[in-house]
Amino acid sequence: MMLAARYVGDRGIEVATVEAAPPGPGEVQVAVAYTGICGTDLHIRHGDMDARVDLPAVVGHEMSGRVVACGPDVHDWHPGDAVTVMPLRWCGSCSACTSGHQHICERLDFMGIDSPGSMQQLWTVPSDVLVHLPPALELAHGALVEPTAVAVHDVRRADLRPGERVVVVGGGPVGILIASVAAADGADVVVLEVNGYRRSVAEGLGLATLDPTDGDVGDRLRGWSQGGPVGASFEVSGTQPGMEVALACLGPRGRMVQVGIHAQPRTVDLHQVFWRELSILGARVYERSDFERAVALLAAGHVAADALISRVQPLESAAAAFDELAAGGEVMKILVRCGDVS
Amino acid sequence: MMLAARYVGDRGIEVATVEAAPPGPGEVQVAVAYTGICGTDLHIRHGDMDARVDLPAVVGHEMSGRVVACGPDVHDWHPGDAVTVMPLRWCGSCSACTSGHQHICERLDFMGIDSPGSMQQLWTVPSDVLVHLPPALELAHGALVEPTAVAVHDVRRADLRPGERVVVVGGGPVGILIASVAAADGADVVVLEVNGYRRSVAEGLGLATLDPTDGDVGDRLRGWSQGGPVGASFEVSGTQPGMEVALACLGPRGRMVQVGIHAQPRTVDLHQVFWRELSILGARVYERSDFERAVALLAAGHVAADALISRVQPLESAAAAFDELAAGGEVMKILVRCGDVS
Ligand SMILES: [Zn+2]
Ligand SMILES: [Zn+2]
Ligand SMILES: [Zn+2]
Ligand SMILES: [Zn+2]
Repeated sequence: MMLAARYVGDRGIEVATVEAAPPGPGEVQVAVAYTGICGTDLHIRHGDMDARVDLPAVVGHEMSGRVVACGPDVHDWHPGDAVTVMPLRWCGSCSACTSGHQHICERLDFMGIDSPGSMQQLWTVPSDVLVHLPPALELAHGALVEPTAVAVHDVRRADLRPGERVVVVGGGPVGILIASVAAADGADVVVLEVNGYRRSVAEGLGLATLDPTDGDVGDRLRGWSQGGPVGASFEVSGTQPGMEVALACLGPRGRMVQVGIHAQPRTVDLHQVFWRELSILGARVYERSDFERAVALLAAGHVAADALISRVQPLESAAAAFDELAAGGEVMKILVRCGDVS
Repeated sequence: MMLAARYVGDRGIEVATVEAAPPGPGEVQVAVAYTGICGTDLHIRHGDMDARVDLPAVVGHEMSGRVVACGPDVHDWHPGDAVTVMPLRWCGSCSACTSGHQHICERLDFMGIDSPGSMQQLWTVPSDVLVHLPPALELAHGALVEPTAVAVHDVRRADLRPGERVVVVGGGPVGILIASVAAADGADVVVLEVNGYRRSVAEGLGLATLDPTDGDVGDRLRGWSQGGPVGASFEVSGTQPGMEVALACLGPRGRMVQVGIHAQPRTVDLHQVFWRELSILGARVYERSDFERAVALLAAGHVAADALISRVQPLESAAAAFDELAAGGEVMKILVRCGDVS
């Protein structure tokens, strides 16, 4: 028996004692150390994704842990291995899969949304979703591999040239991770963020910041770039004004990577896209190579994990951790400590 | 003295007798054989571009001809050379120019709009805008090099894989040229066009067509593709519904190349862009390599120039040729025969 935090509908997160699933053929049972809570988890709890989740739903997809048991036919993994999970399973036969883009499979199973996630003491998963964590990476930081892989994927979509100027619109965890990865790639980065606390976190990491509501953001960006061109922007805010600034700031052949969720259609000035030959590039989740690069960046200290982890809460307090993150304020990432794994 | 067709304001095109400019240092005087009329020329005559043109303005930028005289310091060109002109001049110092994208120079001089064009008997131009035409290419077809170069540039932006399915939204001259170039590159192409005459021209070239107003266009495209993914679309219509279909038809990682002019902001479903990792790619004019490929495609017969040239009118009737094209109906491209050059 073990503990699992489950979304039970009606904005409820309950921690229940449940049976652990033994690993079947090709499966591995992982003792979860940490699970991060992200915006998607808040959306699930808020009921926005009720059509996609089966209740009660074990949430969580940003995790680290250690292998405790391997099922039959698992040869590459051993008890004690430090791991994270790339939480995607694909069908193998749709147009995305057959053209090499399995990560955007038309029937994608996103573990922690479409199937049980990691906010439990023991998580049984197919062995092919596991990713090794090196000894140099502490397990708390390992829980940031998944959002860092998102950032690596987004930055890869932008195809940055060395030294290019980059504007990141939105300074939450994903925006700061994108800015950190772009900076690690040699870009000259500024983060646009309305929240003063988030700006102070970005500044603490050595990133330039601007408050887009303070004066004319276009003028202030031109001041920052000293009139030079911006090569790429990342729209992480999911807002109409954010999208407008992300497009307007770009120089000739600039690329806007669209990361934020825009549930409503947006008004886009396509004439700019034509005139300066801009690109708007959708970017979603990650591929295995992104996961591996995320592990390497975190292990090398190129991503300041500690600055992003605001608090760690025990699994028993998962509901309170959700409340805390939903309330906003001075918080970036909250980790849930799922078990006594070190 | 020679004849020149000039936009004189107030929807007037007048053919006047004017002094020919002798070639200065680095310049070449070209006897113009043909000048095609395109949508941009109609916009100029309509007064839409009065802020950009100096009256009286010699229009025309799709041309062929022969060198008649070279100014001092011109060594690579000789009288009798068959030529076309890539009608772009750039500043060399703006962010576009210094990043290798001179064709979208922030201070671009588009000859025939921002400076005098080719709808005259003798045109004096800097020698570096000339492009050789091979003997195999008749001069009437040479006047199609410029719009073909637009199509080559647009197709290059889409980065087609062999055998990919391609949807072209809009079957005017540019749409048909894009479809022809994509087909020459091995793509499986369908052209969406509301005008029955334009569809019949496309069909005469062996291109598949669909009337987007006949039934559910999404269903009909899925029928055409037999459920397989569309890799790229070209939005040439400049309309909101055209843009929507060009985006909606794309499969995972599909690219929509935005060619048409969208003077108004458009409503774009960015969630699709995110979900299927689509790209929206602005494409404008061409680079020299596009011009050279356009010459080669026309010379090899991969672009059916004769099917696109609806009529040839003498320079004296330039105003009537504009009227005819503006009236629409059963017309694709009209060439103005500017002189007795063969
Ligand atoms: Zn997440
Ligand atoms: Zn699939
Ligand atoms: Zn034209
Ligand atoms: Zn320039």
